Amino acid sequence: MGTKGKVIKCKAAVAWEAGKPLCIEEVEVDPPKAHEVRVQIIATAVCHSDHHPIDPKAEDPFLPVILGHEAAGIVESVGPGVTGFKPGDKVIPLYTPQCKKCKLCLSPLTNLCEKITLAKGPAFRQELMEDNTSRFTCKGKPIYHFFGISTFSQYTVVSDKNLAKIDDDANLERVCLLGCGFSTGYGAALNTAKVTPGSTCAVFGLGGVGLSAIMGCKAAGASRIIAIDINSEKFTKAKALGANDCLNPRDLDKPVQEVIIEMTNGGVDFAFDCAGGSEVMRAALDCVRVGWGSCTLIGVAMGDKGLTISPLELIMGRTINGTAFGGWKSVDSVPKLVTDYKNKKFDLDALVTHTLPFDKINEAFDLLHQGKSIRTVLIF
Amino acid sequence: MGTKGKVIKCKAAVAWEAGKPLCIEEVEVDPPKAHEVRVQIIATAVCHSDHHPIDPKAEDPFLPVILGHEAAGIVESVGPGVTGFKPGDKVIPLYTPQCKKCKLCLSPLTNLCEKITLAKGPAFRQELMEDNTSRFTCKGKPIYHFFGISTFSQYTVVSDKNLAKIDDDANLERVCLLGCGFSTGYGAALNTAKVTPGSTCAVFGLGGVGLSAIMGCKAAGASRIIAIDINSEKFTKAKALGANDCLNPRDLDKPVQEVIIEMTNGGVDFAFDCAGGSEVMRAALDCVRVGWGSCTLIGVAMGDKGLTISPLELIMGRTINGTAFGGWKSVDSVPKLVTDYKNKKFDLDALVTHTLPFDKINEAFDLLHQGKSIRTVLIF
Ligand SMILES: [Zn+2]
Ligand SMILES: [Zn+2]
Ligand SMILES: [Zn+2]
Ligand SMILES: [Zn+2]
Repeated sequence: MGTKGKVIKCKAAVAWEAGKPLCIEEVEVDPPKAHEVRVQIIATAVCHSDHHPIDPKAEDPFLPVILGHEAAGIVESVGPGVTGFKPGDKVIPLYTPQCKKCKLCLSPLTNLCEKITLAKGPAFRQELMEDNTSRFTCKGKPIYHFFGISTFSQYTVVSDKNLAKIDDDANLERVCLLGCGFSTGYGAALNTAKVTPGSTCAVFGLGGVGLSAIMGCKAAGASRIIAIDINSEKFTKAKALGANDCLNPRDLDKPVQEVIIEMTNGGVDFAFDCAGGSEVMRAALDCVRVGWGSCTLIGVAMGDKGLTISPLELIMGRTINGTAFGGWKSVDSVPKLVTDYKNKKFDLDALVTHTLPFDKINEAFDLLHQGKSIRTVLIF
Repeated sequence: MGTKGKVIKCKAAVAWEAGKPLCIEEVEVDPPKAHEVRVQIIATAVCHSDHHPIDPKAEDPFLPVILGHEAAGIVESVGPGVTGFKPGDKVIPLYTPQCKKCKLCLSPLTNLCEKITLAKGPAFRQELMEDNTSRFTCKGKPIYHFFGISTFSQYTVVSDKNLAKIDDDANLERVCLLGCGFSTGYGAALNTAKVTPGSTCAVFGLGGVGLSAIMGCKAAGASRIIAIDINSEKFTKAKALGANDCLNPRDLDKPVQEVIIEMTNGGVDFAFDCAGGSEVMRAALDCVRVGWGSCTLIGVAMGDKGLTISPLELIMGRTINGTAFGGWKSVDSVPKLVTDYKNKKFDLDALVTHTLPFDKINEAFDLLHQGKSIRTVLIF
């Protein structure tokens, strides 16, 4: 089509300042360099993590930046040395790369990759390409990447280690959710906690990740799933997706962990903190059963003071772990999850509460922060 | 002979006041009630946990008390309903009971028992028998039990759930260590962390538990074991038992976790905190490898403020867990460990640095606190 090798001018949402709405701008997107792929984003959803870099509480802002990390699109062109992708391929950009060569990628014990763990600066951030430059400019200024994939742009450039090729008939307006929220929650239950058949589970925070964790618990055969949120409007959907009981801590006259311990005669086998923040982490750890209860941390709250634990809590047989991208080896697993969705193994439609044109991206953030949406899919 | 059913007068070390030496006294030991066993203690060692109730920093002292929980002895008499023990049996008292009937005992996932987890008050403390009375008096006053077994007495009464029958030819002056320190450290590596062949391990704190953890790591096939203590005098023994490298944080010009990360090109697979305290817990968590590193907490420091963790640390694939009594189902496992010792599967002799008559118990505490002993075995 004649864009290969050339700078593309297109629409993107640029975050210029912390605490301010994103600005829809025309940006320039450079051609992909060696082992890079330029992708036309068709659909991108908005996730809580997109807010972190522009949160006024962020300790280390990197601005201006193009956010976005839950998307699906089509390959526009590939740089030198790229063998796994060709123009026209349907793809999902991956903020957790899989190089398939490093010590972590070669281990079955983790889905992390040294491309992010050995990178300078905060893990996952990948605010520049591997040659330490950006592929974006706007109004003459270089713009930072985000999570290596910056999907709030009609065209983006990603490393070929940060990209999964998916089925040609995939519905991009749904499978974009496999880029973060769904995979993270669903995988936390299946891969990280390894929920067992007949077990009891508690899921704190009923956004996209939490609802997906419920689906994962159910898929793993949990016999009872307790869903917790301070917004009771989330409960209908949580029950539809598999929750047996729903608790709103604000409606209880004692701490939610005490209620869960009573309901389950000693605590749940598995708890998931999909919200973040020291108070929720504390409740999630407290509500797991002495002996073998496991607490999986997924949510990250900006500027939080953390969870303080006493060894006595763990000596009683509890485990705390965490997960990034649900433990999935990204390049290998995302195509399979796309196929699983097509085969109706799980429901992504329930997570998509809104579909809007890309220009309404700030409305999508508002809906998310107000707890009115689970996922808004933005269409270019 | 002829003591069955009668009160026995014998020697014991009574803790009357926090922060004071123990007093050797004549105490009265009641006969065992239903499902209880009266045991003549032959050998008892001194462990750090014996100091907790008499630490002036203890939040909830229970005094006067007879301490001691690492011992071996001979059954003197049994109460009604006891079927597993008879006078003359060699036994090891167990502070972690195994009733074999409760939900925890019936699960393969834990070695805890509801006898302690559902008991009122701090777990493990078992300061009274199940009928909420004591079997000890001294100078007309009832004396508290400790950990359900109070082995600093020539005769003690324990529940038949807190006792393991062992081989008739067992050397009680050595296998007494299976009652706490050895089993805790060795099992932490084998059962709790599940150290894998070829892995790298870091063990913080080279007392009886830490040295036993080193033995466990070695038995599991670890390829490199790094031992850490602020007392370099512990290093000779640590190396003899399997440590490949020894580090004294006080001799280093940067935090020990940084040194370990450099030595291992990214961190160890397994870390064990056998010391306790927030500083050591922090180092033990920091030094485990991103991706799959596991940090096992064993030591408990009195009055410590705990470890504050950020979810980001765990999202990078780390796990924190803890262990009590090394994950061993006590009644089932301790007899097997006694047999393993007899078959020279591990070395208890190296842990016994001193043997003293029981009356010198305060000297044994001094040796422990001054770091001059690993274990002092006291003989009645
Ligand atoms: Zn996300
Ligand atoms: Zn890799
Ligand atoms: Zn002990
Ligand atoms: Zn039990």
